[in-house]
Amino acid sequence: MAGSSYGTLFTLTTFGESHGPAIGGVIEGFPAGFLVDFDTIQTELDRRKPGQSKLVTQRKESDKVQFLSGIFEGKTTGTPIGFIIPNEDQKSKDYDHLKNTFRPSHADYTYEAKYGHRDYTGGGRASARETASRVVAGALAKQFLLKQGITICAFVDQIGSIKLSKVEIENADLSRIEENLVRCPDLGKAQEMENLIASIKKQGDSIGGSIFCRVTGVPAGLGEPVFDKLHAELGKAMLSINAVKGFEIGSGFGSISMLGSEHNDAFSGLGKTTTNHSGGIQGGISNGMPIYFRTAFKPVATIVAAQNSVDSSGNPVIVSGKGRHDACVVPRAVVIVEAMTAIVLLDFYLRQKAIN
Amino acid sequence: MAGSSYGTLFTLTTFGESHGPAIGGVIEGFPAGFLVDFDTIQTELDRRKPGQSKLVTQRKESDKVQFLSGIFEGKTTGTPIGFIIPNEDQKSKDYDHLKNTFRPSHADYTYEAKYGHRDYTGGGRASARETASRVVAGALAKQFLLKQGITICAFVDQIGSIKLSKVEIENADLSRIEENLVRCPDLGKAQEMENLIASIKKQGDSIGGSIFCRVTGVPAGLGEPVFDKLHAELGKAMLSINAVKGFEIGSGFGSISMLGSEHNDAFSGLGKTTTNHSGGIQGGISNGMPIYFRTAFKPVATIVAAQNSVDSSGNPVIVSGKGRHDACVVPRAVVIVEAMTAIVLLDFYLRQKAIN
Amino acid sequence: MAGSSYGTLFTLTTFGESHGPAIGGVIEGFPAGFLVDFDTIQTELDRRKPGQSKLVTQRKESDKVQFLSGIFEGKTTGTPIGFIIPNEDQKSKDYDHLKNTFRPSHADYTYEAKYGHRDYTGGGRASARETASRVVAGALAKQFLLKQGITICAFVDQIGSIKLSKVEIENADLSRIEENLVRCPDLGKAQEMENLIASIKKQGDSIGGSIFCRVTGVPAGLGEPVFDKLHAELGKAMLSINAVKGFEIGSGFGSISMLGSEHNDAFSGLGKTTTNHSGGIQGGISNGMPIYFRTAFKPVATIVAAQNSVDSSGNPVIVSGKGRHDACVVPRAVVIVEAMTAIVLLDFYLRQKAIN
Amino acid sequence: MAGSSYGTLFTLTTFGESHGPAIGGVIEGFPAGFLVDFDTIQTELDRRKPGQSKLVTQRKESDKVQFLSGIFEGKTTGTPIGFIIPNEDQKSKDYDHLKNTFRPSHADYTYEAKYGHRDYTGGGRASARETASRVVAGALAKQFLLKQGITICAFVDQIGSIKLSKVEIENADLSRIEENLVRCPDLGKAQEMENLIASIKKQGDSIGGSIFCRVTGVPAGLGEPVFDKLHAELGKAMLSINAVKGFEIGSGFGSISMLGSEHNDAFSGLGKTTTNHSGGIQGGISNGMPIYFRTAFKPVATIVAAQNSVDSSGNPVIVSGKGRHDACVVPRAVVIVEAMTAIVLLDFYLRQKAIN
Repeated sequence: MAGSSYGTLFTLTTFGESHGPAIGGVIEGFPAGFLVDFDTIQTELDRRKPGQSKLVTQRKESDKVQFLSGIFEGKTTGTPIGFIIPNEDQKSKDYDHLKNTFRPSHADYTYEAKYGHRDYTGGGRASARETASRVVAGALAKQFLLKQGITICAFVDQIGSIKLSKVEIENADLSRIEENLVRCPDLGKAQEMENLIASIKKQGDSIGGSIFCRVTGVPAGLGEPVFDKLHAELGKAMLSINAVKGFEIGSGFGSISMLGSEHNDAFSGLGKTTTNHSGGIQGGISNGMPIYFRTAFKPVATIVAAQNSVDSSGNPVIVSGKGRHDACVVPRAVVIVEAMTAIVLLDFYLRQKAIN
Repeated sequence: MAGSSYGTLFTLTTFGESHGPAIGGVIEGFPAGFLVDFDTIQTELDRRKPGQSKLVTQRKESDKVQFLSGIFEGKTTGTPIGFIIPNEDQKSKDYDHLKNTFRPSHADYTYEAKYGHRDYTGGGRASARETASRVVAGALAKQFLLKQGITICAFVDQIGSIKLSKVEIENADLSRIEENLVRCPDLGKAQEMENLIASIKKQGDSIGGSIFCRVTGVPAGLGEPVFDKLHAELGKAMLSINAVKGFEIGSGFGSISMLGSEHNDAFSGLGKTTTNHSGGIQGGISNGMPIYFRTAFKPVATIVAAQNSVDSSGNPVIVSGKGRHDACVVPRAVVIVEAMTAIVLLDFYLRQKAIN
Repeated sequence: MAGSSYGTLFTLTTFGESHGPAIGGVIEGFPAGFLVDFDTIQTELDRRKPGQSKLVTQRKESDKVQFLSGIFEGKTTGTPIGFIIPNEDQKSKDYDHLKNTFRPSHADYTYEAKYGHRDYTGGGRASARETASRVVAGALAKQFLLKQGITICAFVDQIGSIKLSKVEIENADLSRIEENLVRCPDLGKAQEMENLIASIKKQGDSIGGSIFCRVTGVPAGLGEPVFDKLHAELGKAMLSINAVKGFEIGSGFGSISMLGSEHNDAFSGLGKTTTNHSGGIQGGISNGMPIYFRTAFKPVATIVAAQNSVDSSGNPVIVSGKGRHDACVVPRAVVIVEAMTAIVLLDFYLRQKAIN
Repeated sequence: MAGSSYGTLFTLTTFGESHGPAIGGVIEGFPAGFLVDFDTIQTELDRRKPGQSKLVTQRKESDKVQFLSGIFEGKTTGTPIGFIIPNEDQKSKDYDHLKNTFRPSHADYTYEAKYGHRDYTGGGRASARETASRVVAGALAKQFLLKQGITICAFVDQIGSIKLSKVEIENADLSRIEENLVRCPDLGKAQEMENLIASIKKQGDSIGGSIFCRVTGVPAGLGEPVFDKLHAELGKAMLSINAVKGFEIGSGFGSISMLGSEHNDAFSGLGKTTTNHSGGIQGGISNGMPIYFRTAFKPVATIVAAQNSVDSSGNPVIVSGKGRHDACVVPRAVVIVEAMTAIVLLDFYLRQKAIN
């Protein structure tokens, strides 16, 4: 496979460049007979789309998904669900100056090195616009999982150096997440984050952040031993999202300096432990406790300042950001984290059904 | 696939439990006509094996690999390379008391939940003994990559709170790694780490750590866009190693609080950047700069102290560690990190050859 | 995977039902930098489309393919090629009477048994309309292979009992294939076949046929040992085409009654044999001689006569053919056989490049 | 994948050459908690092994399988089942004369062309000895399927021109199959076939044959639409067996000259049809009726007579058969056909469980 397909039994294949006629995908292996809630899918797409607020890029995309197959009389048929999302605000001319120039920390140079021939408009295939297709598949998977009692909820827990503490994360009021522009459940910290992003946007710069995700209701037994451990697939899924540089499950990097006697999660019952440093997964398989993990996003590469670069002959050039850009993509990425989580979990759910 | 196979073109399938007659694997897709250096493979296995030093478990295993196929007159034939590593020091009786008991933070409960029927001796399939098979495949892959100019080198950069700084990592003298028991290139810090592990071993407890890995000589163009990004696969590979809780590529979690203008890697030439926060990968594809990443290991679950647990009926029981154990597995995991890195890179190397 | 994806490195995923808004697909792994000849793709689609002649169904479909991604400035970029073919002549009402009825020898009953919920209009996903997507991918693959000197040519060699002899097949003038409605290179036999189909169409009945395919210019070394033998994949690919009931490679079923001394192909040089009973493949790997095989198609299930069937409660009902139908699909399937052959060969071509 | 793995959820990976220390394999995805009948597995291996009778090769192999993992206290654990079958009667010196010579219609030349470096002893990886590993996996799968009420039975229906008629096949007394050396249920025809093989063996020549396989008890709904049709996978599985040149499902090649009105299988109830030309599969999915198919085997390539060939420089040489050989492999292949059928069906059985 050439990298645009994900999953074993529940699979998503995506296609499309930022500035082509449309992006889209094919969802295979979704169970038949499921009544689709189309409004929720659109709501999820709206959480990702550009132009939501003053904080993010003003590119205008209505991001309306069109389903082409696999749904009959409102219910899934078990056959592939093909869909497209037309690109509306293409403005390809914006990018002509990048034909022979590699923007620092973008994928321009690596695509050129890999393929020789690349679509240089708007990031082409490397554009985060591709993630809209993941949101469609994820929104479907999330609906299905919810019917099985599995809930996925992600939020921003850090922007720059403004960070929720462990206690703040544990006590987070998840109902507040969508009430603020940065999707942080602590409204005080949210305001600080907003101010930070606004000031960085004014400077023409960008800033990183982190997303915390918690999944409840996962039955014990999902995940496979050895290579396809549940948290290994979650890690791959998160690291496949644009701008992600790190992933940690449960106690994560903090576990390095812990003792085994502190870290071990004593059992208080079957599928119940008094602590949850394991993050709901032991030996790669869910144990019935909540799964939680954290994903680090670097600052996006598009900035206004002039930067040193080279052209395709290796000659020095100066690149200045002209396009529209997000000072911080992390709030928009919350729904992508949830989508990829749902895609991973539905795949493992079906894999477990196969053997049980 | 049921989780015991890895890779697309270069694949490894492993089998075997800690206390069965043998573990082993099948390597598929290794290029034909390669003269195998068997000594190096054994040396790599010796770096992983138990009983190397006073710091680690005293289980005795000679870990001698037997190749059964795919190599003819010393050279690979392109057909599957089957191999086994006999288990010698089995002592199954040690584990009878665990038949109906779930050890905290082990995979006992999750395997039971997944399969209903489990091999409770010595961790069964969840034992890190499985990683010996990965070392065999990794050692082969590493030999091949080295001929292409690709060098993989990992070392311990943190045990507990004793940690190498960025500068210490950059200036590390890699020739010192194998000179000390913890495989840390800074001999001063290495001694501190040894002392820490020794004291924790004496307490019957365990401690976590971190491994830093750097890969040089990777040509630009390896990795696939979207889901199979090079660092996403590296992340999955690392997270599939026993006890791993976190992964970060390049600037990693530190990137969260950086500005784009700081983080962007300005080009100084084709495939050359003045900084390398990207960690040698942009848009999921190698850019020709060194690749580096860091992997976090929790403290191992086996400790001597009595712990609260439940039996298979959910009744409270007390579990005490009786088996041999490592106070810290991280030094032994260095070669596993290298092995999985080599496996991932060889797969992407072949995938790139297919289209170029 | 749920059955709608094909291939290892060069892959095709298709979606779409006969009577939805569109069918389409995603092509992954096509090499970058290839200048696409769009006219040839459309020509291939026209060879498959309904309504070409008086012999076939009069359903009107212009079958215009729209490429949505993966091609930039006329050349492939190496990223997924998404495409759709809108359905025009839907007339869903034609099929309301089939909601609760299973047509004999169609897939109505088996889809119901598998999924519980099915799209009963026009055969849904089981309709041969799906093969239009294969023709798009196949036409691209064929263009690429042709540049490597590989030529694929299929034709009808039997309709009902009218059959080309081995000598007639060997001496076939391939330039005549497209000159007649049945796509048989022997114009005399072609006329007989036309007459036969016309008379069977008048009776409201249908008839089977066979397609012979020859591939020249395949270098020695394509195909994999053991399970993924080249002819095993060709067989799977052909048997995946609607209405196919049999496949034979080289000497095929005729080899049963041959002696080894007759059947063995003596070498006259490297990659050259005096006979070619092997059909260009030995041990699952191409040997440099022409590859040839034969595919058997049953008579299509849609006929005018009243037939005994059951409804979804198992009660007897009478089904009469009301829809438009082909008396013989075999002439339209010639291009599908070529397409699937090209898809299989391009995949093995890339797999071989990866290791060589 | 490099061709030595089969299946999606239930998978078999095989390794090993004819004259190495051992062949073997890894079975993944077999359901946990299944009590294994080891005697039956050995009985199946004995049906395939050489030296069973005067008709077949006198190579001596006891073909004793050793299970290394995945079975605990007699029951499967759900983890990979690794196994080896030691090679005993290796006599590698027999083959030194073939180092630089390509035997006609063997895979010597094609392996050389593909890999450059090959194991020339005893056919290496291309030897049918590899199929012993398939028999192990198939015997396990067959046991499991039998508990679900699915029975697989194959027999020889043709050797050379001696052939069972359709009526003889339908009325075959399956209890007689193992009573005769050729595994044909019609004892009269069996005697004729034995005589034919004996006389051809005396001539130092070989002869082809055909195997008929019938599967009963398959529930409706197994198989996937489009590419992974049940009969397409069965076809691939059969064509992957050494010496197979053709496959037909249900009416097969005979369907070419049938009318739709004759061929259609009228329903007499849900999952019941009055005829079964479809061979139990419609649209690629089982319909509840018996599945039956036929597989054609060419005469094996090893014969005593001198044959024209070339050496690795392309110079003419004469090859004479010196090794031990079968005049007809078809009776020994009956159990391989059953094994591959079981492997295919168990995979689809699990795939269907995943979505139902």
